[in-house]
Amino acid sequence: MSQIIKAGLVGVTGYTGMELARLMVHHSSMELVKATSRSEAGKTLAQIYPFLNRLPLGDLVITQPDPADLAECDVVFLAVPHKTAMEIGSELLEAGVKVVDLSADFRINDKATYEAWYKVEHTRAHLLGEAVYGLPELYLDKIMGARLIANPGCYPTSAILGLAPALKAGLVETGDIVIDAKSGASGAGRGAKVGNLFCEVADSFRAYGLPTHRHTPEIEQEISKLAGTDITVSFNTHLLPIDRGILSTIYTRLKSAATVEQVHEIYTEFYADKPLVRVLPLGQLPETRHVRGTVFCDIGLVVDPRTNRLIVLSAIDNLCRGASGQALMNANLICGLDLDEGLPMAPMMP
Amino acid sequence: MSQIIKAGLVGVTGYTGMELARLMVHHSSMELVKATSRSEAGKTLAQIYPFLNRLPLGDLVITQPDPADLAECDVVFLAVPHKTAMEIGSELLEAGVKVVDLSADFRINDKATYEAWYKVEHTRAHLLGEAVYGLPELYLDKIMGARLIANPGCYPTSAILGLAPALKAGLVETGDIVIDAKSGASGAGRGAKVGNLFCEVADSFRAYGLPTHRHTPEIEQEISKLAGTDITVSFNTHLLPIDRGILSTIYTRLKSAATVEQVHEIYTEFYADKPLVRVLPLGQLPETRHVRGTVFCDIGLVVDPRTNRLIVLSAIDNLCRGASGQALMNANLICGLDLDEGLPMAPMMP
Amino acid sequence: MSQIIKAGLVGVTGYTGMELARLMVHHSSMELVKATSRSEAGKTLAQIYPFLNRLPLGDLVITQPDPADLAECDVVFLAVPHKTAMEIGSELLEAGVKVVDLSADFRINDKATYEAWYKVEHTRAHLLGEAVYGLPELYLDKIMGARLIANPGCYPTSAILGLAPALKAGLVETGDIVIDAKSGASGAGRGAKVGNLFCEVADSFRAYGLPTHRHTPEIEQEISKLAGTDITVSFNTHLLPIDRGILSTIYTRLKSAATVEQVHEIYTEFYADKPLVRVLPLGQLPETRHVRGTVFCDIGLVVDPRTNRLIVLSAIDNLCRGASGQALMNANLICGLDLDEGLPMAPMMP
Amino acid sequence: MSQIIKAGLVGVTGYTGMELARLMVHHSSMELVKATSRSEAGKTLAQIYPFLNRLPLGDLVITQPDPADLAECDVVFLAVPHKTAMEIGSELLEAGVKVVDLSADFRINDKATYEAWYKVEHTRAHLLGEAVYGLPELYLDKIMGARLIANPGCYPTSAILGLAPALKAGLVETGDIVIDAKSGASGAGRGAKVGNLFCEVADSFRAYGLPTHRHTPEIEQEISKLAGTDITVSFNTHLLPIDRGILSTIYTRLKSAATVEQVHEIYTEFYADKPLVRVLPLGQLPETRHVRGTVFCDIGLVVDPRTNRLIVLSAIDNLCRGASGQALMNANLICGLDLDEGLPMAPMMP
Repeated sequence: MSQIIKAGLVGVTGYTGMELARLMVHHSSMELVKATSRSEAGKTLAQIYPFLNRLPLGDLVITQPDPADLAECDVVFLAVPHKTAMEIGSELLEAGVKVVDLSADFRINDKATYEAWYKVEHTRAHLLGEAVYGLPELYLDKIMGARLIANPGCYPTSAILGLAPALKAGLVETGDIVIDAKSGASGAGRGAKVGNLFCEVADSFRAYGLPTHRHTPEIEQEISKLAGTDITVSFNTHLLPIDRGILSTIYTRLKSAATVEQVHEIYTEFYADKPLVRVLPLGQLPETRHVRGTVFCDIGLVVDPRTNRLIVLSAIDNLCRGASGQALMNANLICGLDLDEGLPMAPMMP
Repeated sequence: MSQIIKAGLVGVTGYTGMELARLMVHHSSMELVKATSRSEAGKTLAQIYPFLNRLPLGDLVITQPDPADLAECDVVFLAVPHKTAMEIGSELLEAGVKVVDLSADFRINDKATYEAWYKVEHTRAHLLGEAVYGLPELYLDKIMGARLIANPGCYPTSAILGLAPALKAGLVETGDIVIDAKSGASGAGRGAKVGNLFCEVADSFRAYGLPTHRHTPEIEQEISKLAGTDITVSFNTHLLPIDRGILSTIYTRLKSAATVEQVHEIYTEFYADKPLVRVLPLGQLPETRHVRGTVFCDIGLVVDPRTNRLIVLSAIDNLCRGASGQALMNANLICGLDLDEGLPMAPMMP
Repeated sequence: MSQIIKAGLVGVTGYTGMELARLMVHHSSMELVKATSRSEAGKTLAQIYPFLNRLPLGDLVITQPDPADLAECDVVFLAVPHKTAMEIGSELLEAGVKVVDLSADFRINDKATYEAWYKVEHTRAHLLGEAVYGLPELYLDKIMGARLIANPGCYPTSAILGLAPALKAGLVETGDIVIDAKSGASGAGRGAKVGNLFCEVADSFRAYGLPTHRHTPEIEQEISKLAGTDITVSFNTHLLPIDRGILSTIYTRLKSAATVEQVHEIYTEFYADKPLVRVLPLGQLPETRHVRGTVFCDIGLVVDPRTNRLIVLSAIDNLCRGASGQALMNANLICGLDLDEGLPMAPMMP
Repeated sequence: MSQIIKAGLVGVTGYTGMELARLMVHHSSMELVKATSRSEAGKTLAQIYPFLNRLPLGDLVITQPDPADLAECDVVFLAVPHKTAMEIGSELLEAGVKVVDLSADFRINDKATYEAWYKVEHTRAHLLGEAVYGLPELYLDKIMGARLIANPGCYPTSAILGLAPALKAGLVETGDIVIDAKSGASGAGRGAKVGNLFCEVADSFRAYGLPTHRHTPEIEQEISKLAGTDITVSFNTHLLPIDRGILSTIYTRLKSAATVEQVHEIYTEFYADKPLVRVLPLGQLPETRHVRGTVFCDIGLVVDPRTNRLIVLSAIDNLCRGASGQALMNANLICGLDLDEGLPMAPMMP
């Protein structure tokens, strides 16, 4: 009989920390044995998250984020801001612990690009070569052998999965890609800011951060690899009055005329052996609720012959597939478990 | 090795049918082998519920509700309107199938009371004596031996669980109970009515059905049994602009002064061996999101010495604990499985 | 031709300040000439409230809250926290300016009661006798002659208007009143707190502050006057996932049996000459959206002969009738204008 | 002293009819004297719209849509489906009544194009030449002299106003325009359809109707006129879980490099004398709530030098500026009143 894998979580108080706690309740091969928070240390998880009352994880006592203390874990999730993550991540690796970093610190291969977009110095650049970008549909084998995972950003996950088959097949012009992305409010984090109050978000809709969202270089890096050429995208983000969910509407121009059936075949083939991406039947378009609480990425395809465009609609749950659920997929893989172990498959509907 | 239990579902197109489909995805000892709908027969589940794409249940073909066809099931869930339920339920019992009826048809022990509140004739009254009211915290043993379960209503589940310890212990006056209940919009069903449109429900709040909601006699029947005396309650309902969730604020008057600590002890003791009811620590009050998607009932207790009132707050998910999740608890029990088998424990947060 | 009345607003950055700015756009006899904020002084209103772009008020420059500077106003609205309000209010009165205080500082007639519930010393108690409780349906004449208005709280406005006719007519037992009140999130203010974030409020419902909400003594004071006897109420509050709106469900017990028609007649007569309270036709129940953005109070009546209860449903917009709109009604009156001048009459629907 | 203008409304039960009733409450120079509905004739407006209780319009009795009966009106609004509108509109014109048609029937200049997109025969094509497209920022003079107004669609209003200055100035490539539009649920109408239920729309987001939304030819017709050349656009629509509001994110490619300041100057100049379009200060982006309940169109500008794109964000209230508010602007103009008479200027915030 196999042993339970011991997991740690640095930064339990944000929405990604909360989501990881939620997912861990159902995992039978991995147990959360450490959860840290500078501000909440000493309390149990159920005290800060009453939804965990009478559940096993509810009694776990939150501790200070001490690498020595975390060294007993097999794998540690970092749900802390960038810059903080690179430091503690590096210490944990030295202590022999595998790391899944949910921040942006190890996602950008190029130190200068990272520093230009994130406005901080990268002090652990020697690890950039080793870190594996944790998108299992693209890097399954590498992930299985890794000890440091750069867990993808939420927007990049939806954008890259939406574009991968088209770019790999050379279907679309690489110089004319527009990604119009919309995200639920949990993507803005759990910080106490006026802009995130219920009355500032509910019953409204707005764009934000145009045209320099920090997820841009991450998207460009990965889709350039897929296309085999450098791509610059127009990536633009909006705030939805919903808790969870990203829908990216991706506008591309077909290199040559193609029917939607032809495109659909390319996509279904690409994801045939990747069950967590669901290329929808023709005529169906994704809805964020259809992936709510799960790691599914739902993809819908539209070809507009009037403008010769292929429009890809890609929906994920930003907290689950876009953060903690994908982190758990990666942790599963680097610990020798099945990709989807412990993960909820049935979306919350309605 | 034990055999998989075969389950059927009559009426798959409403929200309770949808919820049962969602829950079945994660059940490893029971399989949905039949799902019926007069209007959607011939389609697969994934065609009407795209959230089931690439999941095992997605390929199940919907059939017409034919009792002969359903006779191969070990247990059948009835998610159809009252009156229809009593008829098909009776036929299924004769065919040797166990039945969990989500309608009101077998909840009221007294034929005349049923007919007075539901305005239809009860044509299967001979089964009323046999039907077991499916609230496991009160009737666990009876349920385990039953072949016909009257699955409780959503409001009654929250009200009865909230009042049971106080009434059993004789804490409160039985002549002065007010239940102010608030429900999410899925409780109104999936019928195409103007009053249930997004723009009629969102960003608003209203009471409805006062003072004669049909769940009144069901609540009175069960709490009268608990108290050992006939109780008439003031039960009043409101519509919340949320998908799921009921919060009942229950006002009672203490027979004699008691501290909230004393009341809390009575409640925790009552539910000590019933893990799906969570009596919250003093100072915490329930939130509907903390039970979202689960069968938990969360109970908060307040004693107001100024008015000598005990106020009980009771939260459930109306679709899960208030309907399909509780139906599955009952089906588990009558099929010899554990009460919570296959049920999600971790609420969807946020 | 009459002169434009000059108004000032101390505290423009909260939701009540924002609401007053919104209402002032449409007032042709009163002009907002001063708006203050410690944190935003120097900016224009349109800079902090882009919804005022290209509107006359948009160019008003926010200033520091200096009483000398405000002395040019005919009337000043105080939209600041309690304690701060009593101090600046007292200074303004001395400078000859009329004051409408939206805080609780002058609402409670009894100094000791105020201090017991608000946990601060009342340093301007000499003004308590002069301050008029600004509920025009009860104190129209007094308000017209006042120079200091204690603008009612949001919950008290809905509760008192809902109970007034019944108590005045001696219809109900005064010892058995329960007010179950539900409010939109703007009632919690615009402070940056985690508990008010979109993801903490949306798609959920909860009670809070039980059983000692600070609006309790204010309600008890006013309904005791109406009844001519001291009343203790059970007043309990809940948080709705909507921006605006309060619905209070008020449970009372009839002294003797009465039909709903009889009660309805008493209510319609009471409010016959008070057009801003709408006693709904029998069979209709209020909805918060039907008063959204207006100063209407909508009242629905239910008599339950089974329990001999009169249930009153009272809906207002917490920001408008419950705060800034009522403040403007009061300012109109003390400045010699019509009660409803400048106020929007048509609710935002949907 | 001028006479009150008599207005009629054909089709009062939908959201555009409801919105027109709301707006008419505040109009002092125009009075709604006729409101028709086949299904609700005989009731008062307040009976179907309780928000009109105790307001003047509340007592208006709904009648059957009889052209002879409507002939006493100076102007009639048609809030009925296309095809029905052309028929009744034609009869009213013959009776000497001015008509503002909110349907699509007279928007498309070319009969064949109309019939291709709307799949019905245009039986009143002789009126197409006379009908004036009711976008006052483009056709003010023509509208003032018209007797038949084709009131613009909601999406086209936001798209055309967003593109007009850029196209008129020849700033952008006409062959590479993508309009990614998002609308609140009231845009789907008040029909009782499962897809519009609260539980199907709330807490979710989806695209719909791609790539052949019927507003496409209307947009192309008007922007082609502005550009002086035929334009084909990629126009794509999404459903927001909000009541009101459209935000269009419009992607264009600059013909030659330009700074955002240069573009901003072109836009502010274009709209300098058109106060109902608000070109936001640089750095601000529009939010649908900032125009809620008003006829404002808010425009934000972004230039992305990395991709050489001009991104225009254009926000309106789909029911007000996108339908009934603009209809009232047009009615004002054809009746000799000021453009904004009777219209609310202050958005509902929050």
